[in-house]
Amino acid sequence: MNREIFQHHRQELHTHLTAELLPFWTSRTADREHGGFITHFDQYGHDSGEDEKSLIAQTRSIYTYSSAHRAGYGNGALADLARHGVDYLLSRLWDEEHGGFYWMTNRRGEVRNDQKIVYGQSFAIYCLSEYTLATGDPRGLDYAQRTFDLLQKHATDTRHGGYFEMFGRDWSLKGPGAAGGDRKTLDAHMHLMEAFTSLYEASQHPLHRRKLLEIIDLLVTKIMHPEFGTGIPQFWADWRVAPQIKFDVIWGWDRFTEDGVKRAAEDNTSYGHNAEFAHLLLHALDVLGLPAETYREQFQKSFGHAVQYGVDWEFGGVFVEGSHGGEVYDREKEFWQQAEVLIGFLDAYRLFGDERYWRAYANVHRFVMDKMINHPVGEWWPLMTRQGVPIWTHMSHSWKINYHTVRAVVQSIRRLDKLMAGG
Amino acid sequence: MNREIFQHHRQELHTHLTAELLPFWTSRTADREHGGFITHFDQYGHDSGEDEKSLIAQTRSIYTYSSAHRAGYGNGALADLARHGVDYLLSRLWDEEHGGFYWMTNRRGEVRNDQKIVYGQSFAIYCLSEYTLATGDPRGLDYAQRTFDLLQKHATDTRHGGYFEMFGRDWSLKGPGAAGGDRKTLDAHMHLMEAFTSLYEASQHPLHRRKLLEIIDLLVTKIMHPEFGTGIPQFWADWRVAPQIKFDVIWGWDRFTEDGVKRAAEDNTSYGHNAEFAHLLLHALDVLGLPAETYREQFQKSFGHAVQYGVDWEFGGVFVEGSHGGEVYDREKEFWQQAEVLIGFLDAYRLFGDERYWRAYANVHRFVMDKMINHPVGEWWPLMTRQGVPIWTHMSHSWKINYHTVRAVVQSIRRLDKLMAGG
Repeated sequence: MNREIFQHHRQELHTHLTAELLPFWTSRTADREHGGFITHFDQYGHDSGEDEKSLIAQTRSIYTYSSAHRAGYGNGALADLARHGVDYLLSRLWDEEHGGFYWMTNRRGEVRNDQKIVYGQSFAIYCLSEYTLATGDPRGLDYAQRTFDLLQKHATDTRHGGYFEMFGRDWSLKGPGAAGGDRKTLDAHMHLMEAFTSLYEASQHPLHRRKLLEIIDLLVTKIMHPEFGTGIPQFWADWRVAPQIKFDVIWGWDRFTEDGVKRAAEDNTSYGHNAEFAHLLLHALDVLGLPAETYREQFQKSFGHAVQYGVDWEFGGVFVEGSHGGEVYDREKEFWQQAEVLIGFLDAYRLFGDERYWRAYANVHRFVMDKMINHPVGEWWPLMTRQGVPIWTHMSHSWKINYHTVRAVVQSIRRLDKLMAGG
Repeated sequence: MNREIFQHHRQELHTHLTAELLPFWTSRTADREHGGFITHFDQYGHDSGEDEKSLIAQTRSIYTYSSAHRAGYGNGALADLARHGVDYLLSRLWDEEHGGFYWMTNRRGEVRNDQKIVYGQSFAIYCLSEYTLATGDPRGLDYAQRTFDLLQKHATDTRHGGYFEMFGRDWSLKGPGAAGGDRKTLDAHMHLMEAFTSLYEASQHPLHRRKLLEIIDLLVTKIMHPEFGTGIPQFWADWRVAPQIKFDVIWGWDRFTEDGVKRAAEDNTSYGHNAEFAHLLLHALDVLGLPAETYREQFQKSFGHAVQYGVDWEFGGVFVEGSHGGEVYDREKEFWQQAEVLIGFLDAYRLFGDERYWRAYANVHRFVMDKMINHPVGEWWPLMTRQGVPIWTHMSHSWKINYHTVRAVVQSIRRLDKLMAGG
């Protein structure tokens, strides 16, 4: 690849980020009346009015503004926005009695769901660590560490390793089945790895390093498919594969059949998750000071499966999910899967030097630029047909928000810069 | 068995406890100058002068006096003695900076070994929980819970389950080999089960119950031999069996060869440990409100191996250790193994109604009464030849102390009382 092609892609991303994506948020998200962020917007970018502030949306917003500030954008305005979010997070979502963050408040900051969901706690650790790294405000790392300590006390499974994920307000483990107390997920463990990476980056504490190494080993040896190296979504506590079911407390708009089970409930993997896992792992190794070679085979499998089966060479973009062996089940286009493979394919290209990854990146980049972004408004469509016609049309709700989109653009620019610098 | 025979054995134990064993301690152990307990005595019961107060000896003493008080002995003097020990434990052995208990002070209370050893922390949880149960003083449960929380934060292995065991003062995990940071032991995990049982009994907290259930499952399914159900002493972090080595920080006077390895380093089990594990598990189930039937097969194997291979029907008492399959390696007589099988064989007799267990109990009881106890002084010899001639002669040091002896007598009396009551 020549430098001009990298530069061209970088320029497109940079324009989108600074002229569309970040302005979409900075112009409308701060709730100056009740604090925190408004996170529900329709296809025109108008407040769609849902009376909720979710832990996920508040923490992901804090991550977005902190990390974008740290990457050099916003001239300080993004740091102020992050601080505005942290003020709300610590005053409204933190449970002073039992510790940990509630799952949901209404817009006025009244608690509407007081459960302690590990997936949400992981984003709290992630965003608060990034916030301290970005701004120096010690509150972030302080509460990130408190949350980490609570997870070690209440959520670890000292029998089989890993973390239980669904708790009541007082950290009592929830029941089985849809309550989720008997299951472990790729999703929560992957985001704990992501969170512990930033926590360790901020704290440099040996304990955080050790727990990060433990969860990496767990992910690679238990949560990835033993043959294909692809992510398995759900497990029983003892790490036997569990059929993928819908939980009572959901954190995404994943599609299930009427009875709450996935079509291919025991042979299902997500291209976006696999690419996300691999680029997060690569970043974790970098923060740990370990060589990428440590998990070379894992990277080959994670990125290889996505590039071989996930890319839609006909209409562009990346499919949703399919079997571990390769068969594609769902050919629609989700926003977050596009975002994660952008970073992942650039990492794979840098790691292996294989032109196939560059072509895959360029393919998805083109699909995002031409189809996925709602340019007049600034954010991305959440879900499109295979051909690129919007199916869902909101620009944001409690589970979409901006962490995937902004991170993908910021991190892709960083990787393109490294490629142009010859690294 | 008839009531008279139970009564006769009970009377012997009661006389030993009240006229010899407890008076040995109450007359000489309190250090009124520096606080805590003097725990080093020679064969005549004279202070042998070692300038150390170990976490193990202080906590085991607190357990002994608390539990004996709770069982109705001492007219309040034992509770006072326990409180005297707790005052020292919390003021001299607790680390105000990093939390947890130091391993060793000198007699004046100056820290001589500041490492955090899980084996010792487990006895702190055990004795402090028992102390609150016995006296109502809330300090015990408070510090037991703090120690439990520290173990959950620093010691758990979130990759393979279980607990790492050897830490520096700041809870940094120690290195491999003799430092012990890469190993897990039956000993520490069994004593954590014992500790979590009393902690849960005192707190009734669901988290303590959950962690107790987790460690029970771990012990039964990972730490006991898959075929023989006997205890395997040492493992690597991932639960592969490790050769049994001597650690830098030791907590007993176990015998190793010159190079610090056991003779049968990978096929070695202790009769006393197996009986102790089983009676502690039975007690844990009782505190949990679960039926003994839950682990009936485990009880059959633990007690069965000890009664079949461990009992010396010729000279009396129980041997030290042998192979999982049955071959006896060490025919000497250690004090603590006698103590633990007394409780264990009575439990097995009550559980299975098999006369063989009564005969084994009566055999060991006789050996203890006639050989093991240094009657003129009041405590037990630490180690004897097979025939019952003392090899080591101290009445106490940092690792011997009184938890095995007093507990065995108190608990055997309790079990004989139940047998006489028909239960």
